[in-house]
Amino acid sequence: MLSEFSLIERFFARRARSGSPPGEAAKVSRAALGIGDDCALIVPPAGQQLAISTDMLVEGRHFFADVDPHALGHKALAVNLSDLAAMGAAPHAFTLALALPAADEQWLAAFSDGLFALAERFDCELIGGDTTSGPLNICITVFGDVPGGAALRRDAARPGDDIWVSGTLGDARAGLGLLRGEWDVDDEAAAAQLKCALERPEPRVALGLALRGVARAALDISDGLAGDLAHILKRSHARAVVDADAVPVSDALAALPAPVRRTCALAGGDDYELCFTASAEARATIAAIGERERVRLTRIGTIEPIADASARAPSIAWHDRSGAPLPLTLQGFDHFHAD
Amino acid sequence: MLSEFSLIERFFARRARSGSPPGEAAKVSRAALGIGDDCALIVPPAGQQLAISTDMLVEGRHFFADVDPHALGHKALAVNLSDLAAMGAAPHAFTLALALPAADEQWLAAFSDGLFALAERFDCELIGGDTTSGPLNICITVFGDVPGGAALRRDAARPGDDIWVSGTLGDARAGLGLLRGEWDVDDEAAAAQLKCALERPEPRVALGLALRGVARAALDISDGLAGDLAHILKRSHARAVVDADAVPVSDALAALPAPVRRTCALAGGDDYELCFTASAEARATIAAIGERERVRLTRIGTIEPIADASARAPSIAWHDRSGAPLPLTLQGFDHFHAD
Repeated sequence: MLSEFSLIERFFARRARSGSPPGEAAKVSRAALGIGDDCALIVPPAGQQLAISTDMLVEGRHFFADVDPHALGHKALAVNLSDLAAMGAAPHAFTLALALPAADEQWLAAFSDGLFALAERFDCELIGGDTTSGPLNICITVFGDVPGGAALRRDAARPGDDIWVSGTLGDARAGLGLLRGEWDVDDEAAAAQLKCALERPEPRVALGLALRGVARAALDISDGLAGDLAHILKRSHARAVVDADAVPVSDALAALPAPVRRTCALAGGDDYELCFTASAEARATIAAIGERERVRLTRIGTIEPIADASARAPSIAWHDRSGAPLPLTLQGFDHFHAD
Repeated sequence: MLSEFSLIERFFARRARSGSPPGEAAKVSRAALGIGDDCALIVPPAGQQLAISTDMLVEGRHFFADVDPHALGHKALAVNLSDLAAMGAAPHAFTLALALPAADEQWLAAFSDGLFALAERFDCELIGGDTTSGPLNICITVFGDVPGGAALRRDAARPGDDIWVSGTLGDARAGLGLLRGEWDVDDEAAAAQLKCALERPEPRVALGLALRGVARAALDISDGLAGDLAHILKRSHARAVVDADAVPVSDALAALPAPVRRTCALAGGDDYELCFTASAEARATIAAIGERERVRLTRIGTIEPIADASARAPSIAWHDRSGAPLPLTLQGFDHFHAD
């Protein structure tokens, strides 16, 4: 059994850049002071704002007890990096607070490997944290840079804007359904792809940076398109018309029955793709960004003004590819209700 | 049953300053963007470093299930502000991630009242967070400002420095023992004081700010004097000689049997007093700071060089008031072992 301090030292502090021994070929830390003091100290570059986001992952709610710890380390940081991506912020640091039922060395080795593999890809440095015993809980706070005024906010959508999404939607929810036995997929490669979407989401960091100055409003789809788009609409005081059949799905998801496919794509959480709005003039620029970043970008609808000023709630009008209205009542994922 | 979003709105977002409706007499937010987007945005003032700390509190480990939620809200932020105090940083913002077994309105009302009462006292703004269902877990990350180079670090102690502590030590551990039935205190006022020390620690923010440029090394005593002073010694490559009888205790603690008193004062956690070192020339200045801030400041020992360069570990030599060595083997609180 490892003590708390040797656990931090062995699995986390050594791999935090500022904890590298002198002489080791570590990159230069952006932190003035990293792990091992009461606080970390960072110096944001002049002219940049600091973007901050925090996400807590709980066993049984966000992941199963038997999840591959390497994948869990990846996902815990990925969902936070996704928030930076949605803001157009460049990742630079994170803190990690971890409650563990036991100090299981094998589990910690795999978890920290998954975590740091992603952190190193995005040059995102662990600068501090906390560990305690308790039911498994992972709380990460990330820090990113964005030039003053350049952040992609939720409140910036305007009537007439196109609504775009990156990648394909619904695979993560379909993967969850597979694990839960809600449905089955015979094709092993397709099943693996759906589970991978759930367990190893790819934060759209490069896309978020490319969309600065191009997109207006943006967010990441963590709770499902219907619920997340509603956040943009609420904060931008607008409504949306969306072609449900235009929402892109993977071949693996397309092979599932239509009602499953539609629910997963429109209301399934955990995809971590970006949803953003932009003026129609930006279409060619956005297409070029998609090609350069090798990410599918699809127009799915339009932002509309709220016609009646007394209308109670902003809303989404769904239609199918023929233009016929779809009476969908889709809700975003809510952590205090079953999804 | 409240939904996640109405819960955040009702108990947290409304009281976050940046969420104040226009026209309401709210203070000006330092945050460029607060709760409700993917990230908060903050703009650190020129010349300041950003001090960041994170602490996770778990039911059954850091507090009992039946703790007064108002006190818990206070303590969850207090232990984080204490880390800023120990660094000499001025609090300005925090994020809150919360896992709750249920959305209990009464509990949330009291918890958020306790939290914001302390936050408002220290002008510390809630800028973001996350809520989820799960075993009760509170993870706060705090942000403070400290001028470049002025932070009170753990690695700055020098041989010849005095070792100081603020307040009295051991009351929180004595209060924990009362709740656990390890010992009893007949005097009701004394018992209340000990429990209050455990449940409502006061972060030494003003003291930390006053000690900038005066103290050398500093930290807050969260895991017990013995364990925490060892962190300063390890990072400063030094050892310490400490008069165990000089360590200040309250009258309430002094009334307990000598072995209990000593263990609580020297190794009990959760006091959140500051331990700091300073040159002997600073004694008068420090005494004046104590009077101005109305906090007891006591010299308890001296930093010594490590005589033998090959000595394995920095250590503390304890003695009693007569100078006789005390063979104490005190360890700091370790979350993976019983304390």
